[in-house]
Amino acid sequence: MSRLIEPRTLKGFRDYPPNLMIPRERLLETARRVYRSYGFAPIDTPAIEYTEILLGKGGDESDRLIYRFRDHGDRDVALRFDLTVPFARFAAQYVGPNPGQIPTPFKRYAMGPVWRGENTAHGRYREFWQCDFDTIGTTANSSDIEVALVIHDLFAALGFDRYQIRMNNRLVLNGLLEVLGVLDKSVPLLRSLDKLLKIGPEKVVEEMVKETSIDSANAQRIVDLANIQGTNDEVLSFVESTYGGNPQTAQGIANLRELLNVVRTSGLNEDRFKIDLSICRGLDYYTGTIYETFLTDKPDIGSVCSGGRYDNLAALYTKQQLPGVGASLGVDRLLAAMEEMKLLGSSSTPAPVLVFNFSKDLLATYQKIARHLRVAGIGVEVYPETKKLNAQFQYAEKKGFLVGLIAGSDEVAQAVWKVKNLNARTEVSISELQLAETIRSIIG
Amino acid sequence: MSRLIEPRTLKGFRDYPPNLMIPRERLLETARRVYRSYGFAPIDTPAIEYTEILLGKGGDESDRLIYRFRDHGDRDVALRFDLTVPFARFAAQYVGPNPGQIPTPFKRYAMGPVWRGENTAHGRYREFWQCDFDTIGTTANSSDIEVALVIHDLFAALGFDRYQIRMNNRLVLNGLLEVLGVLDKSVPLLRSLDKLLKIGPEKVVEEMVKETSIDSANAQRIVDLANIQGTNDEVLSFVESTYGGNPQTAQGIANLRELLNVVRTSGLNEDRFKIDLSICRGLDYYTGTIYETFLTDKPDIGSVCSGGRYDNLAALYTKQQLPGVGASLGVDRLLAAMEEMKLLGSSSTPAPVLVFNFSKDLLATYQKIARHLRVAGIGVEVYPETKKLNAQFQYAEKKGFLVGLIAGSDEVAQAVWKVKNLNARTEVSISELQLAETIRSIIG
Repeated sequence: MSRLIEPRTLKGFRDYPPNLMIPRERLLETARRVYRSYGFAPIDTPAIEYTEILLGKGGDESDRLIYRFRDHGDRDVALRFDLTVPFARFAAQYVGPNPGQIPTPFKRYAMGPVWRGENTAHGRYREFWQCDFDTIGTTANSSDIEVALVIHDLFAALGFDRYQIRMNNRLVLNGLLEVLGVLDKSVPLLRSLDKLLKIGPEKVVEEMVKETSIDSANAQRIVDLANIQGTNDEVLSFVESTYGGNPQTAQGIANLRELLNVVRTSGLNEDRFKIDLSICRGLDYYTGTIYETFLTDKPDIGSVCSGGRYDNLAALYTKQQLPGVGASLGVDRLLAAMEEMKLLGSSSTPAPVLVFNFSKDLLATYQKIARHLRVAGIGVEVYPETKKLNAQFQYAEKKGFLVGLIAGSDEVAQAVWKVKNLNARTEVSISELQLAETIRSIIG
Repeated sequence: MSRLIEPRTLKGFRDYPPNLMIPRERLLETARRVYRSYGFAPIDTPAIEYTEILLGKGGDESDRLIYRFRDHGDRDVALRFDLTVPFARFAAQYVGPNPGQIPTPFKRYAMGPVWRGENTAHGRYREFWQCDFDTIGTTANSSDIEVALVIHDLFAALGFDRYQIRMNNRLVLNGLLEVLGVLDKSVPLLRSLDKLLKIGPEKVVEEMVKETSIDSANAQRIVDLANIQGTNDEVLSFVESTYGGNPQTAQGIANLRELLNVVRTSGLNEDRFKIDLSICRGLDYYTGTIYETFLTDKPDIGSVCSGGRYDNLAALYTKQQLPGVGASLGVDRLLAAMEEMKLLGSSSTPAPVLVFNFSKDLLATYQKIARHLRVAGIGVEVYPETKKLNAQFQYAEKKGFLVGLIAGSDEVAQAVWKVKNLNARTEVSISELQLAETIRSIIG
């Protein structure tokens, strides 16, 4: 016999067995349902693209992380490393005002794996899922507000009670930088400010001075503004009274106020929406509203849904200006958090009911009753072999079935079934017609 | 300004805009629901694997089609070209009788893109989706029967009325070949027989004689058996009366009879299940029941769901014998057929309702009513800008919204909404509380 090949995955890659995959599917289905309920439509793009498309002309640090190779036609191609760049390429190609083009505003979501050859030291994976939604082709604050509402509904639908969407608006910070006369240094300044939680205010001031040579008093003013504590109204009123004379800051404040107004009119829990001027996200990509989302009971894992408004999505590929706003759900990070919080359950079967198998002669009856229950919306597996009852029970327990259905030829002749609650270890005998109702009362 | 990068996809790859992606998601969701209802559980495996795992030690013709490259660690890696090989590797790694292993029977489904550098001449894509389900670790005919039931339910759930699952059992053919003394030539013989529909009986006989040097009378007997016409019972009775003395053939007949018995007991339409001895599938991989599925109104596109029973899934990676049975849904082929059959619809929004936007001041009210409807399970988009009504109507039409909700400040003050049926071009004015019911009656 020939040597076996050792079954293994590549470093940084992982399999999803049922007990992990069932929650991932639930998470993605919930996201799909919420995105769709707001009119976001799905798109998909290829995993492989021209490297030029993915990296732009430059080839910056992403270059080292990207999976890049020559295809059979000797083309320079690569695997996508996010869903944003392919979306930009897609938008440049199809979105526009002409007949046959996709009209704006264009609301899309996309879900799928992306690949980066990252260092795996910190539990990072080289293949991971992204799950993005965006509205492009409009600068209306209405779309910014909707992003916050979508995030709110998404986490509620996932079953979370305690979470907070922290929001800011780049215009508020830009106005401040303008007032201080350091707007031209906004990129390194905001990159430093983004570290506020990690390294604390003193270190941030120090770094700002060192990196940009601004006045330490000005650096302190920036940090102080970002650090304001208070209710949403208090924070906004304070900024207005101090820097509200600047038109950018005033616009940023007005946009955030409009958002709070929608939250209040809709009767949502305002504790879940928090104006936080320290949220600035390191990327110089964002130009308006910014969002980060934290689980109150797991603040240490960082933001699980982040995004913001940008001025122009697809400048690399088209002259058409495509402003937009959106956010990205951190699928793997969220799943890891839910696992730690014991929110995933341990079942590895999507069907709650197992029909025990006593005899080959009863197979047609078993499948018939299973069909009856499936039509009623209840998932049912029929154990395929007539093994000893004990072996079938072990199987049911290992997989996490909730209900066992038991009938030998006597029961089948009388159309009576034993319904076993496998967790409570209780049992009732009932007629066929009561089965669906009884099982529903057990599985809830 | 620097030169723009031309936005384009690679040859053989394609984007899914909303009008194609909405049906694809619906198809995959339906498949998921049906698979789960039988207790099949989802798994996922990485897109990239060691080339050795994907190709085995040999490196056969798949070699030329596979996307293969060196990763950052100089490993010889490749993109998966199907979902079966990764499943075999997965099963070898995790499935078994020990604590912590996944117990058998193991019922799994998997969905995802696969990649092959194929010739694109015949409309083939280099990235396409597969959608497989299998039961492994059991030889019980119960699992074979279930595969046919799953295929039946899947096409019914997709909205098809006229389709047929054509079934055979390799044992029936093997028995015949044994009786004729040519069982050792079964691989080339069945490869020829598989061309029956394409090239006709004479050419098949000719090819069999040429390729295997068997007697032309024997070749004719094989083709004659494959060509038998009649009801399921007639076909099985004829085989039994002619070759039923062979134990393999007898077993194959018994298994198919048991399948028909379940179909009848469950009250299913037997026209959808057809014993067809010409179905043999070219692969020598299959060893028992074989399935192909045809759309009655689109026979020319070939089988849209195929599979069968195999003796050993993962022999390359483990000594553990893992027999199984399963099938694969041809996602792209089916979508193309549904498009031609005008079954896809033309909408490119997943939300049926558009709220027209008259004034920035009403935004909170619009979002409040949208939330009310979303909670009732109705998808609603709020147009983000206060553009002219005409422009908003054009947008609604282009996207395929079914219902427009219209309220200016007068209507809002009275809590009255105009509900526009955008297809019928009719309109009613109703109170807020009647909205959900009225909209449901329009969208059905």
